[in-house]
Amino acid sequence: MIRVGIVGGTGYTGQELLTILAAHPKATLEVITSRSESGRYVYDLFPNLKGHYDKQYSVPDAKQLQECDVVFFATPHGVAQSMMSEIIQGGARVIDLSADFRIKDIGLWEKWYGQRHSCPALVDTAVYGLPEFNREQIRNAKLVACPGCYPTSILLGFMPLLEQGLIDTESLIASAVSGVSGAGKQAKVELLLSELDGSFKAYGVDGHRHLPEIEQALREIQQVKNAAINLTFVPHLLPFARGMHATLYAKLLSQGIDLQGVYERRYADEAFVEVLPAGNYPATRMVKTTNLCRIAVSEPQQRGTAVILSTIDNLTKGASGQGIQNMNIMHDLPETLGLSSLAHLP
Amino acid sequence: MIRVGIVGGTGYTGQELLTILAAHPKATLEVITSRSESGRYVYDLFPNLKGHYDKQYSVPDAKQLQECDVVFFATPHGVAQSMMSEIIQGGARVIDLSADFRIKDIGLWEKWYGQRHSCPALVDTAVYGLPEFNREQIRNAKLVACPGCYPTSILLGFMPLLEQGLIDTESLIASAVSGVSGAGKQAKVELLLSELDGSFKAYGVDGHRHLPEIEQALREIQQVKNAAINLTFVPHLLPFARGMHATLYAKLLSQGIDLQGVYERRYADEAFVEVLPAGNYPATRMVKTTNLCRIAVSEPQQRGTAVILSTIDNLTKGASGQGIQNMNIMHDLPETLGLSSLAHLP
Amino acid sequence: MIRVGIVGGTGYTGQELLTILAAHPKATLEVITSRSESGRYVYDLFPNLKGHYDKQYSVPDAKQLQECDVVFFATPHGVAQSMMSEIIQGGARVIDLSADFRIKDIGLWEKWYGQRHSCPALVDTAVYGLPEFNREQIRNAKLVACPGCYPTSILLGFMPLLEQGLIDTESLIASAVSGVSGAGKQAKVELLLSELDGSFKAYGVDGHRHLPEIEQALREIQQVKNAAINLTFVPHLLPFARGMHATLYAKLLSQGIDLQGVYERRYADEAFVEVLPAGNYPATRMVKTTNLCRIAVSEPQQRGTAVILSTIDNLTKGASGQGIQNMNIMHDLPETLGLSSLAHLP
Amino acid sequence: MIRVGIVGGTGYTGQELLTILAAHPKATLEVITSRSESGRYVYDLFPNLKGHYDKQYSVPDAKQLQECDVVFFATPHGVAQSMMSEIIQGGARVIDLSADFRIKDIGLWEKWYGQRHSCPALVDTAVYGLPEFNREQIRNAKLVACPGCYPTSILLGFMPLLEQGLIDTESLIASAVSGVSGAGKQAKVELLLSELDGSFKAYGVDGHRHLPEIEQALREIQQVKNAAINLTFVPHLLPFARGMHATLYAKLLSQGIDLQGVYERRYADEAFVEVLPAGNYPATRMVKTTNLCRIAVSEPQQRGTAVILSTIDNLTKGASGQGIQNMNIMHDLPETLGLSSLAHLP
Repeated sequence: MIRVGIVGGTGYTGQELLTILAAHPKATLEVITSRSESGRYVYDLFPNLKGHYDKQYSVPDAKQLQECDVVFFATPHGVAQSMMSEIIQGGARVIDLSADFRIKDIGLWEKWYGQRHSCPALVDTAVYGLPEFNREQIRNAKLVACPGCYPTSILLGFMPLLEQGLIDTESLIASAVSGVSGAGKQAKVELLLSELDGSFKAYGVDGHRHLPEIEQALREIQQVKNAAINLTFVPHLLPFARGMHATLYAKLLSQGIDLQGVYERRYADEAFVEVLPAGNYPATRMVKTTNLCRIAVSEPQQRGTAVILSTIDNLTKGASGQGIQNMNIMHDLPETLGLSSLAHLP
Repeated sequence: MIRVGIVGGTGYTGQELLTILAAHPKATLEVITSRSESGRYVYDLFPNLKGHYDKQYSVPDAKQLQECDVVFFATPHGVAQSMMSEIIQGGARVIDLSADFRIKDIGLWEKWYGQRHSCPALVDTAVYGLPEFNREQIRNAKLVACPGCYPTSILLGFMPLLEQGLIDTESLIASAVSGVSGAGKQAKVELLLSELDGSFKAYGVDGHRHLPEIEQALREIQQVKNAAINLTFVPHLLPFARGMHATLYAKLLSQGIDLQGVYERRYADEAFVEVLPAGNYPATRMVKTTNLCRIAVSEPQQRGTAVILSTIDNLTKGASGQGIQNMNIMHDLPETLGLSSLAHLP
Repeated sequence: MIRVGIVGGTGYTGQELLTILAAHPKATLEVITSRSESGRYVYDLFPNLKGHYDKQYSVPDAKQLQECDVVFFATPHGVAQSMMSEIIQGGARVIDLSADFRIKDIGLWEKWYGQRHSCPALVDTAVYGLPEFNREQIRNAKLVACPGCYPTSILLGFMPLLEQGLIDTESLIASAVSGVSGAGKQAKVELLLSELDGSFKAYGVDGHRHLPEIEQALREIQQVKNAAINLTFVPHLLPFARGMHATLYAKLLSQGIDLQGVYERRYADEAFVEVLPAGNYPATRMVKTTNLCRIAVSEPQQRGTAVILSTIDNLTKGASGQGIQNMNIMHDLPETLGLSSLAHLP
Repeated sequence: MIRVGIVGGTGYTGQELLTILAAHPKATLEVITSRSESGRYVYDLFPNLKGHYDKQYSVPDAKQLQECDVVFFATPHGVAQSMMSEIIQGGARVIDLSADFRIKDIGLWEKWYGQRHSCPALVDTAVYGLPEFNREQIRNAKLVACPGCYPTSILLGFMPLLEQGLIDTESLIASAVSGVSGAGKQAKVELLLSELDGSFKAYGVDGHRHLPEIEQALREIQQVKNAAINLTFVPHLLPFARGMHATLYAKLLSQGIDLQGVYERRYADEAFVEVLPAGNYPATRMVKTTNLCRIAVSEPQQRGTAVILSTIDNLTKGASGQGIQNMNIMHDLPETLGLSSLAHLP
């Protein structure tokens, strides 16, 4: 059994980790930490998990976390960097769901996140945890930096075209929408149901923190490594809790490309990416609570612009589900273990 | 008083017309037709209008409709074309909320709508009812073809840049979302609450009927008349009833354009278009039940791509409100008469 | 023109007051106060009101408020009691939307609201502002205590039966639901969209603060004044912003009562209460943004239990709309003035 | 492995059955029928089930269904009665999710369902499939009539008090709400998202078909068998897809009853009924996609009226999940097998 620790398990990604782990046959929760909820039982915070955990939250303690095989950080960015070295040196492997180790250029990270990085030494060793791109490096990683939700949906959407050099990388566009759980469990007026009910809006148009992360990964993914990448990324907020949909636009470099074939071949062996039949478009409800990414691709009116639609659950494939997928890879388990939850419809 | 007739007043645009007209000080409902509901009172179908109308639905009769000053067609496309000549010849002016007279190229209309046009003679005389572009022609029009909801939000968004020739017209992108009322009051499984609840998806990616309408208007609006226009248009469905948001992307032809100034100057005298202060983004709830279009513009990261966010209420500025705005213009009334309804928040 | 002051106009009832007053032909906003937003323009907080107000928030000042004809308190309970004496002595009349002066028994108020009442002297002079019960007293009131939203929907529902002594007052039941705007604009985790989305629950089962208010009023309304009243009241939270629905149950004291007739006669002259035809049931959307209460009554299976369904908009008839209705009465204006806003459907 | 047949597997209860069975370790789908979808693959209708079923729908054929161990009827009432005798005589056991065999009094059934019963001979043999009441009879049943969703939530709520004779059975009240999936996958205007969005209403006040079913079961459950039962039942529609909440009111026959203890003891051994700690109230999201019933009980203000709050997922414990629970019992499997799906929050 994999002994699992969770640092900061009171928010939405922590809750999703717990929900998935409750049904995972090869992992068991050893430690779960929270400064504010220390001493409380997991099921007091999350009654839906009653009967699955009898653990109490504890104050984070690197010594105790070292004893785990794998430690998930489900903290906001910047919070837990300082503890990580000790944990890793102690022998545990870390899967970080926060943004702390995703960006290789520390100056860039500090600019976008508005604080000093307190653990720069580990940044280079961190492996970007997008299994469909990086699987082999993940296998032996000590520290996995799990991608953000927008990056996951956008990267899986562009990847087949980028890898084969089929699109103009200087005019990429990503119009993406997210359920409001992506904003976390924060007591802010603008996240109240009354403020969002039946409404839709863009946000972060002039710069969302996921932009440099996405561009860095696009640069690594593309055929000609490190060529110029220029992405216009506009995120929007949906008035419901879960779901993410990216609508991507790219200029094709030649005519008559069999886009459907390119995508089907690229993802033929991927358990968690499903390319829809031509003429079908994905809905977020079809991937809700699952680790799936469902993708459609087409070239409307044969006018030289590819449109890719990419859907995930922002908390599952966009965060905790992908974290578990990484954990499975790191322990040579079947990648889908514990991740077979289906979307319940309607 | 303007004597008003409504053909087909049982659907959502008819309902919205009735709701607005109930508070219009210079218009009075004379006739409202419906084959299926003939004989029933308006307030039986729409209890929220009780006390405001004592009319009954009647079978459509061109002779009777001729007696009106203005007749709104709130029918689905293709349904009422045949009656229109007689009504107009009889002296009434027509504001058509359907798609029947929006597209000048009859062959193109027939291809996209999949039927023969039964009143081609009137197509040339129809004026496209977007007041912010066409105000003077509307004033004396006999037949106004009211724009669709997507076209309204998208055209108002691109107009300032197009008129001044500031963008590359061959790579325009419109990622737009609509509340489900845009699909009308049709008993279809895919429009059930159970099928849409908490979900988001694109549709019509490979060709939505509003595409040729938008492209025709973009061609007329641009500085160099009838130059090539190439729009990639992806509509999406929101899981709530009302609201429309277009996120538009265009490549700027030069650097350092004062986008904010361009938009503010263009719409300074428009009562129904509000350009937001820089750094603000519009939410659909702010225009709900109003005839407003709220717009924001920016050039993220100064990378040469303009992003325009344009929001309307799909049933008001996107249909019936704009129809009333046209009616006001045609009768030399203040354009805002009867259209001062505010969004009630939250 | 009625010169209006608003104390604490940043929350949802303040916003609704502003929205209604913007269209009121006989009232004009003189002062609006907020300690936290002092100096900001109303349209900065509420962009939907742009063009309707050019006022700035100011720090509350009794001297300035005295100059108004009427001052609305849209503050949370307990906040503004201390200023009220001075304002009233200065000549302004007050309409209090908070709970501070609704309950006559000060000890009872202090028990339920968990604080000392800082203005007990005024409690006796306050008139309970439910016009359908209290119209004549409201006309000359110096201080109107506007009913809460649950009390309004429940009292209008029971009133016809109570006044005529047709039901057992010791076994009344009210199962009521409210949109979440009723909880106010408070940054609390339990009011986040993510916490409420697609869910339904009861709250305050063991004692909601509206219970003593409702029972006090029921006692005054009933035929035999001050006889025993026993109400079981269970409020529930709906996962949308606006709307209130009370389902009331009462044991009928005799058989064969013409319930429909009782209700229709009782409310025949009331502009804001609409009794639905037998067999129709009210939906909250039909009263959204209106000052209406729509009611249905029946005796299912003729088994001796009356079921009354009573719907209002919790922010309009349940708060600010009713406040304006009171203001109209106090100034001998038509009761419906400025309150003719229709529900926009869908 | 249990060989399972499903008759009419295209609606919401069929979809839920398929979703649960996909993860059931001891059951396998042999046949799934649908006249309208015959020949189509299950995953064409339900893309979320892709990879879990390679079956096609077939025309219902009693001979083929006889070969199954258990056949679920997921048809509307009245549709499939005629086939049932042959299937049962052929050796398969039947779990009927429709209303056809729930009511013992055939005349009563025919009155409420407005049609003749075409298989009256089997009614007597049918066992009412509420395991918490009827477990032993279910074990050997040939035909299980699975309870409706409202009956399940209401019966589990009243059961502990009824069995011990603690309440007045002649003045029971059930105010219940259901997600709209309870109305099925029917293309009706009144079930459109646009018609229900952000609204709440009662329906069926003057007689819902679940009333006689509930009263029959209450009569069997109560301590003094077949004493008078009088339930006032008002169902309401929630504007989201899944979830059911019953708020129950009953007059207590004596003072000082330890309600919390009564409920905890009654359900101590039930895997699918969870009694909440005193002072907690259940939310429907906590049971979403699970087979749980979460219940709270209290006596507000100690005034002699018990209030019970009972929540289920209308499609799981209220239909298909309970069907699988019955199947497990009938095959001597652990009752929770395949039913451990957790609610994913938020």
